[in-house]
Amino acid sequence: MNGNLLEAYKQTVYPVLGHGPRNLQVLKEAFEHQDGDRDSDIYGTGMLIEEFQSKIADCLGKEAAVFFPSGTMAQQIALRIWCDDKGIKKVAYHPLSHLEIHEQDGLKELHHIESVLLADAGSLIQLEDVLGMQDDIACLLLELPQREIGGQLPEFQELEAISAYCLRKGIRLHLDGARLFEILPYYQKSAAEICDLFDSVYVSFYKGIGGIAGAVLAGSEAFTKESKVWKRRYGGDLISLYPYIISADYYFNQRLHKMEQYYEEAKEFAGLFNQCHGAATIPAEPVSNMFHVRFDVSKERLEPILIAVYEETGIGLIASIKETGGMTCQCEVNIGDCYASVPKTELRNAFQLLDAKLRTVD
Amino acid sequence: MNGNLLEAYKQTVYPVLGHGPRNLQVLKEAFEHQDGDRDSDIYGTGMLIEEFQSKIADCLGKEAAVFFPSGTMAQQIALRIWCDDKGIKKVAYHPLSHLEIHEQDGLKELHHIESVLLADAGSLIQLEDVLGMQDDIACLLLELPQREIGGQLPEFQELEAISAYCLRKGIRLHLDGARLFEILPYYQKSAAEICDLFDSVYVSFYKGIGGIAGAVLAGSEAFTKESKVWKRRYGGDLISLYPYIISADYYFNQRLHKMEQYYEEAKEFAGLFNQCHGAATIPAEPVSNMFHVRFDVSKERLEPILIAVYEETGIGLIASIKETGGMTCQCEVNIGDCYASVPKTELRNAFQLLDAKLRTVD
Repeated sequence: MNGNLLEAYKQTVYPVLGHGPRNLQVLKEAFEHQDGDRDSDIYGTGMLIEEFQSKIADCLGKEAAVFFPSGTMAQQIALRIWCDDKGIKKVAYHPLSHLEIHEQDGLKELHHIESVLLADAGSLIQLEDVLGMQDDIACLLLELPQREIGGQLPEFQELEAISAYCLRKGIRLHLDGARLFEILPYYQKSAAEICDLFDSVYVSFYKGIGGIAGAVLAGSEAFTKESKVWKRRYGGDLISLYPYIISADYYFNQRLHKMEQYYEEAKEFAGLFNQCHGAATIPAEPVSNMFHVRFDVSKERLEPILIAVYEETGIGLIASIKETGGMTCQCEVNIGDCYASVPKTELRNAFQLLDAKLRTVD
Repeated sequence: MNGNLLEAYKQTVYPVLGHGPRNLQVLKEAFEHQDGDRDSDIYGTGMLIEEFQSKIADCLGKEAAVFFPSGTMAQQIALRIWCDDKGIKKVAYHPLSHLEIHEQDGLKELHHIESVLLADAGSLIQLEDVLGMQDDIACLLLELPQREIGGQLPEFQELEAISAYCLRKGIRLHLDGARLFEILPYYQKSAAEICDLFDSVYVSFYKGIGGIAGAVLAGSEAFTKESKVWKRRYGGDLISLYPYIISADYYFNQRLHKMEQYYEEAKEFAGLFNQCHGAATIPAEPVSNMFHVRFDVSKERLEPILIAVYEETGIGLIASIKETGGMTCQCEVNIGDCYASVPKTELRNAFQLLDAKLRTVD
């Protein structure tokens, strides 16, 4: 059924989400004006990779940064290094952390590191959760924003308090910053100001930035040096990572300054959902370019409604839906370049139609 | 000093080795005629990745194949699966296996798998070594050709005997086929005929094939299915691997049928080295597109000689040299597309000059 919705979404004149289709054009555009004579990176060395790593290290205010094929690899390695450092094989993170639900238990299977889950699945980790945490934790991982609950964020003062506590207790603090750039407008802070609260940071280049794949892990010289050894052990030290680096750099330059725009547009878009019968966004007002929408109707009943709206208006609002119990369903929304080109009148019309149709369900 | 030699090599009109510089043009060429509308692979799914995996599985005569970012990742995973399968955490391979010398002990650090080293470092693994092996081995890994000793190969009958023995003993046999396509002309066998002796196979797409990076792991449906779980655990299940897949496919189509040519040229090129004073190739006659050259002169004395030859003739013979004891040194040679465009008279002249200069060293 998701297949049908996705197909209908793709057929619309104005698909609203993200930066557009994930197709080969993403790479072709990034390489179009690249000089073919430029040398590949070679096993983590060479100007091409080193310059990008320096640039991102500077942006994050860290001593050094290492480019990785994926965040999964980068974060497991970060946690392993901190565990080895402390001589404790235990870390703490949110129950819906990427490590807990999307990595086939890599951290446990490859490193035998135990995870302590903080906070309820539906809530953010608060200072209170950290204060109540067992003492024998090598590292606390915080994900900002917390993707699986709609991209929620704690207040900055809360972060500062958590960071100060961890520093005092000798607990390493790692930032899952897969969407770090996307939250700068809400906090009104630089990336470096946020990262300053953390010992190590991972950022991704294919979420808000819209590159092809790839991640950076940043921290002290000693930490990043050790991460390169593990990168080699994982088979992540590819002879050439430049297809990801070039495109990461290209879209980073193109979109970093647009995060404020995406954030404002996300708030506007969420407002339109919240005016619909039986629909509510999580969080009620987005704090980044993303949010979730919860519908008080089953996935089976919502999908044909959405498809009808898409076909009547040419506006694609949601690409896929997840069932959350029999009578509710939920979806994730990300704002990127596409939103700005959707005519606002037609977008409002689409939501009026959606609202009308949702009212007929009860 | 290698820097100087490499620089001089790059400055020559005719660099002899490989397919040419590893620069961005390699990717640009592969993507030039690709349709930008073609969909990315998504986390290991989608036509783009599935079609290529099927094509390579067919070529290797295996039920299924999985594309990996690297051979390091693919092979550790293969060995882990076979160890789990047998309930034994011990594998056997050559002392100069990639796993033993180039992976920062990933197999041991990530999987706690013990390695039993078969044969002397300078020799091939023979049936005799396998017969003398302890019984509690989950998997034997054979690398064909054995890269670190010049790309040597056992006779096919020897392979058949090793395979039959492993089958009888219930020992899994894995092929490190980083350079599998390069040995087909010597064996006069298809890839499938060779792979039929093995339970699992890894092949690379950036050696003789000359792609950007990437590898395939092939075997039974059950084996490859499990390898995908581990690929996710490793952080190798990238949202998009297409930059590597497209280029692997492009250069595979372009170069698979040229392996015979590279092999013949490698024999010719090795013959020229063997006519030089104090130089000898390993093996004496190449069995693939690669070989090593051993010089009875120190690296410090050989480098200026080579640089002088390059400058006088415009022919680049070797890009880097490794010291092997005070009075000898060694290098690796790979033949690809470049060799065919080197004028033969000038190549012979370069070797005459090299020979003359080597004679003055004693």
